[in-house]
Amino acid sequence: MAARAHRVLRATIEYDGTAFAGSQVQPNARTVQGELEEALNRLIGERTRVHLAGRTDAGVHATGQVAVFHLPRRGGTAGGLPQLRRRLNAVLPPDLAVRSLRVERAGFDPRRDARWRVYRYRIRMNGAKHPLERHRTLEIDDRLDVAAMQDAANRMVGERDFASLGADEHGRTVRHLAEVRVTRRGDLVEVRVTANAFLRRMVRSIVAILLAAGRGRLAAGDVDRLLAGSGRALDGRAAPAKGLTLERVVYAAEQPNEGTNRGSVDRRGRHHQGMTGEQGT
Amino acid sequence: MAARAHRVLRATIEYDGTAFAGSQVQPNARTVQGELEEALNRLIGERTRVHLAGRTDAGVHATGQVAVFHLPRRGGTAGGLPQLRRRLNAVLPPDLAVRSLRVERAGFDPRRDARWRVYRYRIRMNGAKHPLERHRTLEIDDRLDVAAMQDAANRMVGERDFASLGADEHGRTVRHLAEVRVTRRGDLVEVRVTANAFLRRMVRSIVAILLAAGRGRLAAGDVDRLLAGSGRALDGRAAPAKGLTLERVVYAAEQPNEGTNRGSVDRRGRHHQGMTGEQGT
Repeated sequence: MAARAHRVLRATIEYDGTAFAGSQVQPNARTVQGELEEALNRLIGERTRVHLAGRTDAGVHATGQVAVFHLPRRGGTAGGLPQLRRRLNAVLPPDLAVRSLRVERAGFDPRRDARWRVYRYRIRMNGAKHPLERHRTLEIDDRLDVAAMQDAANRMVGERDFASLGADEHGRTVRHLAEVRVTRRGDLVEVRVTANAFLRRMVRSIVAILLAAGRGRLAAGDVDRLLAGSGRALDGRAAPAKGLTLERVVYAAEQPNEGTNRGSVDRRGRHHQGMTGEQGT
Repeated sequence: MAARAHRVLRATIEYDGTAFAGSQVQPNARTVQGELEEALNRLIGERTRVHLAGRTDAGVHATGQVAVFHLPRRGGTAGGLPQLRRRLNAVLPPDLAVRSLRVERAGFDPRRDARWRVYRYRIRMNGAKHPLERHRTLEIDDRLDVAAMQDAANRMVGERDFASLGADEHGRTVRHLAEVRVTRRGDLVEVRVTANAFLRRMVRSIVAILLAAGRGRLAAGDVDRLLAGSGRALDGRAAPAKGLTLERVVYAAEQPNEGTNRGSVDRRGRHHQGMTGEQGT
């Protein structure tokens, strides 16, 4: 079918990663991509490929994952995008939802065109437990030194070779880590990590390093050695998936303050505080 | 054992009600009280009775339930209350936690001495889905008229006979409903209900009435007739348990602004906005 006969749609999606084997389609596994493709198939009556901006592992959540798919011009869009979003959400499982839907230019690639990816890692420390949020928070007994974590984090940022943390599927290891920010509210410590792209398990490896720093087991200076080392200096250690959420993907064409109301990201990937609170659906 | 040999401890507890058969001990069922008593038994080596401020049904959550128990002066308290809280949380299951712990006066009764109970009901409307919060939110397709809901809510408040909504175990039906407040942020509608005490399923019956009003199926004037009717005028209809959370129990001796940082409750049970955000553990 000619590209002309289709529209490109971009969906911002949210999921509870607990019961997913990850974002990308795999044989005999429940995946985000697979569920989205099946829902679209049910709605428009033909197989439609879904492309995701970021690859998330089993157990990792998202509030701002981006999915792109092509829709036949005549199929499934009666009532416009709000109606399509409702119908999609009605057939999607409860742990996966489309939060917003918009038309994109032809040729838009959610992965290649992404400028920044923003992840958030949530840690509840000091033995505090918050049962209603346990699915998306790592709960630990220790008290973390947040200043030490931020010091360690500051050693990591920049455009550099992160070979010690892994590689992508092409063996490339250079990434631009724009910002690693550690904040605390009561016993909740949050690490927000922004980069142009990430290696596999890179965010969770970064968090593992920061946890070691926060527990006093790693000096800020050790971070340089760790990152300079090659061959998986961390021995594959990574913080558990349940604490991690893909929060936002920022595209080159967007204005810095476009997108969610959780603040903006400037050209260097640095965050600026915006409105907080409930994200629009 | 003489009462002298014990200390009275008051715990503020949180739970995800999804996997509980309710708060009160029942044979062959997993309950909040049962899990707390078992954890105490493991820690101090003797059966200890736990008394809860409010009875919550299967599936109902709590962030501010109050539990009281007696502790032998010599047992289980090495390291003081913070250490006891940690040890309790370490043996409690992940969906149940002690958020704070304090010593109470002898004779304190968490149920009889409670002045106000505050419940919150969360509804996500308009077909919006928020997978990461689905466990504690009712998700509906309709758009609700929040002003109509507040109008209906205003008809309910006061000290009156709520026989049409049920009865307590002694057949009493008069309650002082101090405040019913309906607020909206985006697609999230929250109903906060404050009363001296509640009949069984009373909050969920109130929410069922407000949902009907918000959907335009019930005029504010109908509320008077509904409440004046006797014999379960609602036919037992009640909003689903998953949207409901027991948020706070206020005691007579407390200062109005004591307790959580989510605002204060005055002598008439009306709320005043305080700090918002993460509740301290």
